[in-house]
Amino acid sequence: MNVVALSGGVGGAKFADGLAQSVGPEALTIIVNTADDFQLYGLRISPDLDTVMYTLAGLANVDTGWGVSGDTFENFGMLAKYGVQPWFRVGDRDVATHLLRTEMMRLGANLTEVTQVLSQRLNIDTRILPMTNDIVRTMVDTAEFGVLPFQEYFVKHKWQPTVKRILFDGIEKANPTFETLRALETADTIILCPSNPYLSVEPVLGLSGVKDALFNAAAPIIAVTPIIGGEAVKGPAAKMMREMGVEPTPLSVAQHYAEFINGFVLDERDAEYADAIRALGLGVLVTNTWMRDRNDRAALTCEVINFADHLRPEKLGGCRLPQR
Amino acid sequence: MNVVALSGGVGGAKFADGLAQSVGPEALTIIVNTADDFQLYGLRISPDLDTVMYTLAGLANVDTGWGVSGDTFENFGMLAKYGVQPWFRVGDRDVATHLLRTEMMRLGANLTEVTQVLSQRLNIDTRILPMTNDIVRTMVDTAEFGVLPFQEYFVKHKWQPTVKRILFDGIEKANPTFETLRALETADTIILCPSNPYLSVEPVLGLSGVKDALFNAAAPIIAVTPIIGGEAVKGPAAKMMREMGVEPTPLSVAQHYAEFINGFVLDERDAEYADAIRALGLGVLVTNTWMRDRNDRAALTCEVINFADHLRPEKLGGCRLPQR
Repeated sequence: MNVVALSGGVGGAKFADGLAQSVGPEALTIIVNTADDFQLYGLRISPDLDTVMYTLAGLANVDTGWGVSGDTFENFGMLAKYGVQPWFRVGDRDVATHLLRTEMMRLGANLTEVTQVLSQRLNIDTRILPMTNDIVRTMVDTAEFGVLPFQEYFVKHKWQPTVKRILFDGIEKANPTFETLRALETADTIILCPSNPYLSVEPVLGLSGVKDALFNAAAPIIAVTPIIGGEAVKGPAAKMMREMGVEPTPLSVAQHYAEFINGFVLDERDAEYADAIRALGLGVLVTNTWMRDRNDRAALTCEVINFADHLRPEKLGGCRLPQR
Repeated sequence: MNVVALSGGVGGAKFADGLAQSVGPEALTIIVNTADDFQLYGLRISPDLDTVMYTLAGLANVDTGWGVSGDTFENFGMLAKYGVQPWFRVGDRDVATHLLRTEMMRLGANLTEVTQVLSQRLNIDTRILPMTNDIVRTMVDTAEFGVLPFQEYFVKHKWQPTVKRILFDGIEKANPTFETLRALETADTIILCPSNPYLSVEPVLGLSGVKDALFNAAAPIIAVTPIIGGEAVKGPAAKMMREMGVEPTPLSVAQHYAEFINGFVLDERDAEYADAIRALGLGVLVTNTWMRDRNDRAALTCEVINFADHLRPEKLGGCRLPQR
């Protein structure tokens, strides 16, 4: 099998971990949003890549959704002695990742190469691909503060400002990597993880050639809802949908993706929307999509893999885990 | 008063702390060796500046002689997960200093400006000046490994290789800063701290114009021995002197500096050399030069300040601390 998933941070990373269990890490490629990347003190920080990488390496801090489990913040205390109190805290372990990434890129490596090296060193067999080696930067146009760089909106203002629209600086000039396009072209299953459709998946889809690759893909394309019972499991997805005049329902998400997906996975708490989503011409899977632990991740992804298999003429054998 | 001291790392930093007590921090300027500076993962690390700064801020790790007291090394453990085991360990608190310095320099500040900002933020009233804003790099020519960058000789090989000679890459093209030359010209007392004459003081003296400034200085110039009883208090000074065919005695150090100093301070354990040093035409102070604690630092520097006052025609009032 050759499963390709598009992912943002926490929700996508959990789903990726489930997929690695369900189909085996070697059969899996995760294409990760990099539009949330930024620099702090010259360090190149890639929050979604790091969350996916740490999650697949078993190092993620599951309580916070970012950073390394058990990390400390001694550097932050020392920065405070210098009178510097950044609103973005980098853990002492986490900083090692950024130092190595920054240094490798200073020496000429691109983000794809750096991500490969770092993942391999952490014994991750899943292929993690940044969506692009170019610079794309999410900007959030807010009612209260005007246009904010994503991390200011997300971390500094704790996603409380009212979102008017979301912009992706540089997206017109950015290209998806060769590896990203090739992965989509050769996939036999493509999954949009339960990540924020507007913040995390949209930048990947906005890269020149990605939507064409999806339209042309022979593989079934499945989207998994990030909205359960009108709310996001984590983060601002539901809040920002409301603010942008979109009802935060799985139906809205399905409509958003409908033109290029074949199947949609919604939560059993939202079963009422199944018929409306079927009416969009999509296959539908209704199940428990809330991933509380690693077993939940495995069970959900296993069902999704079998659901994808069900949507194609010739079966590939599906999930290798026992069904729940 | 206007006291200017030339310093390397640990020994110089302790002496500087004593001087700050003896004459008041506002009356003191420390000119610090930067030839040991290097880059690690793109971070600009200035070991001697940091040791002086941390010591004067009361943050220094007195056990190791480098880094911040109570620091942790979580970043090092994480680097190890990536298969990277640098022989130079940067503490988690210490890294904050390097991040800020690196970022300020990336934005165009020079090392003098950065050092001023960092010192002020740590509430240091003593003026700390890097000897130059240019790049000078100490290289140690060893019998076993050929020419090594200083930190490889000093940290990686724990100063065990046999030293043949010491080179200062870039010294011909480097200039002392305006602030450094001006400090020497306007000083009323100049002190060579008990730092390694060949590694730490030599690069300062080697900068174009520094020796001329010393020859022309109206101020008495005093050197304090880094050698006690044939050994260095800390570090490779005595070992490398033997290896380069120089007897590790205060007399050798006095001879090394004789052409431009007026007075020499040696330890009471080496009193036998006092006459030979006097015979060089130097004033001599024999006292306890071993600084075990902050009181020792204050007592020694107080004596040295009064000794310097004794060497000039018009007295300036000397040390403000009670004599021991």
